[in-house]
Amino acid sequence: MKISILTLFPEMFNVFEHSIIGRARNNGILDINTVNIRDYSTNKHKKVDDYPYGGGAGMVMSAQPVVDSIKAVKQNENSKVIFLGPRGKTFNQEIAKELSKLDELIFVCGHYEGIDERAYKYFDMELSLGDFVLTGGEMAAIPIVDSICRLIPGVLSSEESFTEESFYSGLLEHPQYTRPEVFEGEAVPSVLLSGHHENIRKYRRQISLAITKERRPDLFKCVKLSKEDIKLLKDYEKHID
Amino acid sequence: MKISILTLFPEMFNVFEHSIIGRARNNGILDINTVNIRDYSTNKHKKVDDYPYGGGAGMVMSAQPVVDSIKAVKQNENSKVIFLGPRGKTFNQEIAKELSKLDELIFVCGHYEGIDERAYKYFDMELSLGDFVLTGGEMAAIPIVDSICRLIPGVLSSEESFTEESFYSGLLEHPQYTRPEVFEGEAVPSVLLSGHHENIRKYRRQISLAITKERRPDLFKCVKLSKEDIKLLKDYEKHID
Repeated sequence: MKISILTLFPEMFNVFEHSIIGRARNNGILDINTVNIRDYSTNKHKKVDDYPYGGGAGMVMSAQPVVDSIKAVKQNENSKVIFLGPRGKTFNQEIAKELSKLDELIFVCGHYEGIDERAYKYFDMELSLGDFVLTGGEMAAIPIVDSICRLIPGVLSSEESFTEESFYSGLLEHPQYTRPEVFEGEAVPSVLLSGHHENIRKYRRQISLAITKERRPDLFKCVKLSKEDIKLLKDYEKHID
Repeated sequence: MKISILTLFPEMFNVFEHSIIGRARNNGILDINTVNIRDYSTNKHKKVDDYPYGGGAGMVMSAQPVVDSIKAVKQNENSKVIFLGPRGKTFNQEIAKELSKLDELIFVCGHYEGIDERAYKYFDMELSLGDFVLTGGEMAAIPIVDSICRLIPGVLSSEESFTEESFYSGLLEHPQYTRPEVFEGEAVPSVLLSGHHENIRKYRRQISLAITKERRPDLFKCVKLSKEDIKLLKDYEKHID
């Protein structure tokens, strides 16, 4: 996968030199490069913004350097140009999966009071991270690129991939415990020390169901409950009363 | 505001040396420091994780170094310890506003297959960025810290703050245009060149209403429409038909 990030702040993407993404880049699985939009400005002072037509506060990013940087980096037909902006569709795991199958992604990070509307015809998609205000598209590109890259074959080790799948069950994760057996007077639940795999599985499933139901009713209503799930939940709720 | 970010990857937070947040730190308005959780491990090999009790793939972060790093940095009564994890409440602008009023925030970035459940009593809140999988809490901390910091008085210049307010109207932004007047054969809408402020205001309001209704019906239904808004929308829809 080739990923280009078009930005006025390329230095913000040092974050991808580390951890899982850094490893995949070193192994040649991922080719992530940042491109300074300013380098493509044809203005003699390398200006990339100007006052908005019709007045108003703030500056607007000019179309020319953005469009020319897209044209310069795009290599592949099986690619998408994604603008990160507040009017976009809210990013989620479904979108991550879909984008992870492409050969090339080009992310365009907006800044200031927006970008000249005439650049939009070069964007295939606009994505937003959620309903909150960010300093620039860079802050959204960082988690979005991370989330997509994890789904590209070879980026995660086989153990990490296994972990990943458990998330896709649509339930929140059960609690985890590691050594020591007692921490600040609190012991690990005895079932986890029992060595009884079936009981451990049921215990974990039960807690996952219960916390998803409590904290994320929106996710819970999408889960197809088995007969065992219904019994586990009933037992849990009886126990709590 | 004092912000501490507890992480196994402090180098990922170089991103806050730049742009608006970098400026506020240089001006002494923001005190952001990253703390390596590993430095607080009492294990002689500075280990911070171990196998999960009850079995399963992956490693679990130990409670001890996390809890001891929280205890070491926390200075203020008017503070919150926020764990970034997939079981948390989805972050939004309301939460950003609430947190921006505190004197101290401590973010704890989870990694691996979770964190020992017994560390949770030290967390005041768990936050998630959305319904997608990330490599670690760092990827969520970056946009969340950015979004909160923008709301702290003095971080944005007065012009930037003004821009900010327009977002809070609950509508998506109207399109923006800047020079040149014609770009790749496409002209700026003539109303924006008219100098007629009232017409420009109405045009922008109309487009904001229309794109919010089309793209984000969930936001649109929360907007209190004025009589003028209803007329503008009706005119727009007539024009489109």
